[in-house]
Amino acid sequence: MQEELKIFYKIFTTTKDAIEKFMNMLDPVIQNAADEHERLYYHHIYEEEEQRLSRLVVLIPLIQKFQQAKDQKEFSPANNEFNRLLQELNLEKFGLHNFVEHLDLALFRFTDEDRSSLLNSLREVSYKDYQQVKQMLIDINGRFDTNFVDPHAHHDEHHDHLDRSQTVTVVTHAPQIKQRRGFTVGSLI
Amino acid sequence: MQEELKIFYKIFTTTKDAIEKFMNMLDPVIQNAADEHERLYYHHIYEEEEQRLSRLVVLIPLIQKFQQAKDQKEFSPANNEFNRLLQELNLEKFGLHNFVEHLDLALFRFTDEDRSSLLNSLREVSYKDYQQVKQMLIDINGRFDTNFVDPHAHHDEHHDHLDRSQTVTVVTHAPQIKQRRGFTVGSLI
Repeated sequence: MQEELKIFYKIFTTTKDAIEKFMNMLDPVIQNAADEHERLYYHHIYEEEEQRLSRLVVLIPLIQKFQQAKDQKEFSPANNEFNRLLQELNLEKFGLHNFVEHLDLALFRFTDEDRSSLLNSLREVSYKDYQQVKQMLIDINGRFDTNFVDPHAHHDEHHDHLDRSQTVTVVTHAPQIKQRRGFTVGSLI
Repeated sequence: MQEELKIFYKIFTTTKDAIEKFMNMLDPVIQNAADEHERLYYHHIYEEEEQRLSRLVVLIPLIQKFQQAKDQKEFSPANNEFNRLLQELNLEKFGLHNFVEHLDLALFRFTDEDRSSLLNSLREVSYKDYQQVKQMLIDINGRFDTNFVDPHAHHDEHHDHLDRSQTVTVVTHAPQIKQRRGFTVGSLI
């Protein structure tokens, strides 16, 4: 478990930093939104990431606490704090999944070189981290016989629905999409 | 606490039903999306509500379990299952908040009479329920001295940012939100 905690710590401190970069990008977009729909749209994503950030502020020290555990018995479902850790990790798997999608949505809008490069690099790391957390939690949940269910599993039945490796060849391109049209928030209305 | 559990049970069974109605509305929109951005946008909201649904499937029986508690000592932070209940309730407060915003975003798109009527009625109930859950949790968290922090509090500093009662006169209109004040991510950290 120590090796896994080390990886979780690295992934969640990395994503905490990524959230901050993403929120800083969204902030002026919200301030200067062309209309109320656009403002609400980005403000909503901003708030969801803000919620995730506030959970990570609690989760990261919890991971650190277990990294310092001296007794293997602490890694047991009989320890309620360990259950809490597993529960939070399972929740933040979805936090990472949703972040990848927030980045994908942002890639449709922020097509300038600077922002799309940053978004693509955050996307690449977050996607890998999501896959790794997902895989590690399948193992861990199996080992500790938890009852965590993945409500997304059916979306991946035929294809990893976040995977864009098959359709994107140039990294600065928009995610997983063959034909990307010019997009404005207005086109969604 | 029994009276509060009764209200929580009612609110979360109501919102579970509302999620299902909303997901049923989104399903054909995703299937028939005009482009990849539109598809991803609604699929993303669909998945977030699906995550919430899967959490409510666990939370509702937990509320019921505490409704049947015979001993007042079960309602104590010394009981880890009670801590779990509080934690889940605090999480689902954000679930309700995000649902109100999903409905508001959908109201920009689904302007036909049938769908906007349904969305507005779901929005009205969900907004009231969110406010009630928020208020009840302020009381409960105070009583049990929990450390739950609301990362949204600053958004409501001058104005309830989900309140549309002051700015909307015709119910089929899209939600209106007052100007957002300056905020930096740094202020959270």
